[in-house]
Amino acid sequence: MLPGVGVFGTGSTARVLVPMLKAEGFEVHALWGRSEEEACSLAKELSIPFHTSRSDDVLLHQDVDLVCIYIPPSMTRQIAVKALGIGKNVVSEKAATAVDSFQMLLMEGYVGEVQVCDVRVYGPSLLDQSYGWTCEDLMGGGGLHTVGSAIIDLLSYLTGTRAQRVHGLLRTFVQQNDTIRGIRRVTSDDFCFFQMLMGPCTGGVCCTVTLNFNMPGSFLHEVMVVGSTGRLVARGTELYGQRNGSKREELLLGDGSWAGPDVKDIPLPHLLGLGAMVKALRQSFQEHEERRLWARGPVAMAPTFEDGLYVQTVVEAVKRSSFSGEWECVEIMNKEPDPNHNICEAQKRNKN
Amino acid sequence: MLPGVGVFGTGSTARVLVPMLKAEGFEVHALWGRSEEEACSLAKELSIPFHTSRSDDVLLHQDVDLVCIYIPPSMTRQIAVKALGIGKNVVSEKAATAVDSFQMLLMEGYVGEVQVCDVRVYGPSLLDQSYGWTCEDLMGGGGLHTVGSAIIDLLSYLTGTRAQRVHGLLRTFVQQNDTIRGIRRVTSDDFCFFQMLMGPCTGGVCCTVTLNFNMPGSFLHEVMVVGSTGRLVARGTELYGQRNGSKREELLLGDGSWAGPDVKDIPLPHLLGLGAMVKALRQSFQEHEERRLWARGPVAMAPTFEDGLYVQTVVEAVKRSSFSGEWECVEIMNKEPDPNHNICEAQKRNKN
Repeated sequence: MLPGVGVFGTGSTARVLVPMLKAEGFEVHALWGRSEEEACSLAKELSIPFHTSRSDDVLLHQDVDLVCIYIPPSMTRQIAVKALGIGKNVVSEKAATAVDSFQMLLMEGYVGEVQVCDVRVYGPSLLDQSYGWTCEDLMGGGGLHTVGSAIIDLLSYLTGTRAQRVHGLLRTFVQQNDTIRGIRRVTSDDFCFFQMLMGPCTGGVCCTVTLNFNMPGSFLHEVMVVGSTGRLVARGTELYGQRNGSKREELLLGDGSWAGPDVKDIPLPHLLGLGAMVKALRQSFQEHEERRLWARGPVAMAPTFEDGLYVQTVVEAVKRSSFSGEWECVEIMNKEPDPNHNICEAQKRNKN
Repeated sequence: MLPGVGVFGTGSTARVLVPMLKAEGFEVHALWGRSEEEACSLAKELSIPFHTSRSDDVLLHQDVDLVCIYIPPSMTRQIAVKALGIGKNVVSEKAATAVDSFQMLLMEGYVGEVQVCDVRVYGPSLLDQSYGWTCEDLMGGGGLHTVGSAIIDLLSYLTGTRAQRVHGLLRTFVQQNDTIRGIRRVTSDDFCFFQMLMGPCTGGVCCTVTLNFNMPGSFLHEVMVVGSTGRLVARGTELYGQRNGSKREELLLGDGSWAGPDVKDIPLPHLLGLGAMVKALRQSFQEHEERRLWARGPVAMAPTFEDGLYVQTVVEAVKRSSFSGEWECVEIMNKEPDPNHNICEAQKRNKN
């Protein structure tokens, strides 16, 4: 049975997500916005019966079993933890596309042994019109946090291995613009390059990722996997392949199946990915009678929160590397961080 | 007055170069090949009156004033030094294309302040059919030596600055193949990635270069320069540009002016570059009566031997970085290397 849905966020993703959910048969019962006005206006536009600017009103809403969170990253954790704590299901983060075909072909050995992955995402600035979390590295803004984390997840999924060592370089070329000036300065990266060495030390995979958001008027999203017997390239929503010995690329998957309206702020691959995720969610819940139970099968490729911890660890290692200039190891935390970290440091110093 | 030419080499470059030289009015008097047979066969094919396998026979040939050297890198130095020593002119190395238009647009401020350069060269294996210098890193084989050095030169020319620090990663994915096996192993790189930080520490340019020669059946040669107000991209022999605010790329230069025959082993950009260089050489020599004098103007963009030393220093730093895993500084040697380097080391050790 399909669960009732509560949505957090009034941005472009939320605006697209709600009609998608409804089209798959989900009922959206509640909407949360940062201000009463934002929530009210979007709820009216999307015909959502209840809106609020107090998060508990959505979390505790009796018809809400599934919570979809599309708000600034720094606020996501708090709400996700609370929702999970009271036994509700949580969906967060964006989704990619053409991924399952890609992975199927890799599994079938289309490229042979994977040697190199090369990802490039070019686009216009990620900054909001006004100063906000997108400008702040510590608030989760910037290319590495916003796009890089999805790429890390994708490459780990595609290659079936995890990053062992990373080397990165972050830059903020545009620190001020027409709307962000005076004493304010952008600290989040608009250019991010990193390398990941994945899998075993010998015979592992070299990944290079280039993110550049100083390119208004273009949107390029390319994922290339080169192996010993061929290569696969996803460009936007299309998947191409070329086997060694073949003279040209073949189009393996031309996913032009987006029948919905064009959405200005969201690139097509993300739009298609979001649509695919909502469909998988529907299948996952449909298999069970109880409205909070779901099947792993249809959403198997969606990253879990444990995957999220791994991705976050890689992101932190890239940031460390950009600072130190050295290769940094990716070491997943396996116990809770010490909440009194700073105090301990001070005590240690006093002892000496 | 045009000088008489002597050519070293019987490979694909020499085979293309000789007709180009003749078309511009140069007379090719002598050809050197590693074996008498190779030299004889190509001399007959290209109607060159004299051939030999002894280098002095070309260098001391009375009609030869200009020496063109297209032989394995490890042998080039010896011959170039000797030719220069007896007052002859020397041309060596390959040439690129579309470079002058590119640089003119950069000078005119098409992209504003340069932020990022991104170069990608993908192609089939660089190895010869049989075991030889192309397989050996120490003999100057591999992507970094063969293609990377030309890219370093290009980026320095385009940005008008030099690399300060580099970080690199070299890999040899294919260490053995059908013809190279047994105890023999390829040591030259077939995958090379490096970053160069150019110009001043703050406000400098980030360059990323990816060379992958495990991609048979494809030849991609892309140089992208991203700046504060727009970007320029050379793809193969075509130059595209897009200014911020514009919705699409414009074709700025479609250099399809190659009227000669297709040559299997040489990609079109190199072919066009070679043609342009021969034309510039002709103009350079024509301006003077004396056949060994030449004008700097037409060949101003050709790298000098001093540029060569800089490029070689960057290449060595990339190799050091791939070994150490750290950023390496580019420090140009400004005195002769100590010829007794090893002895001194041993002496130092004895003193301790």
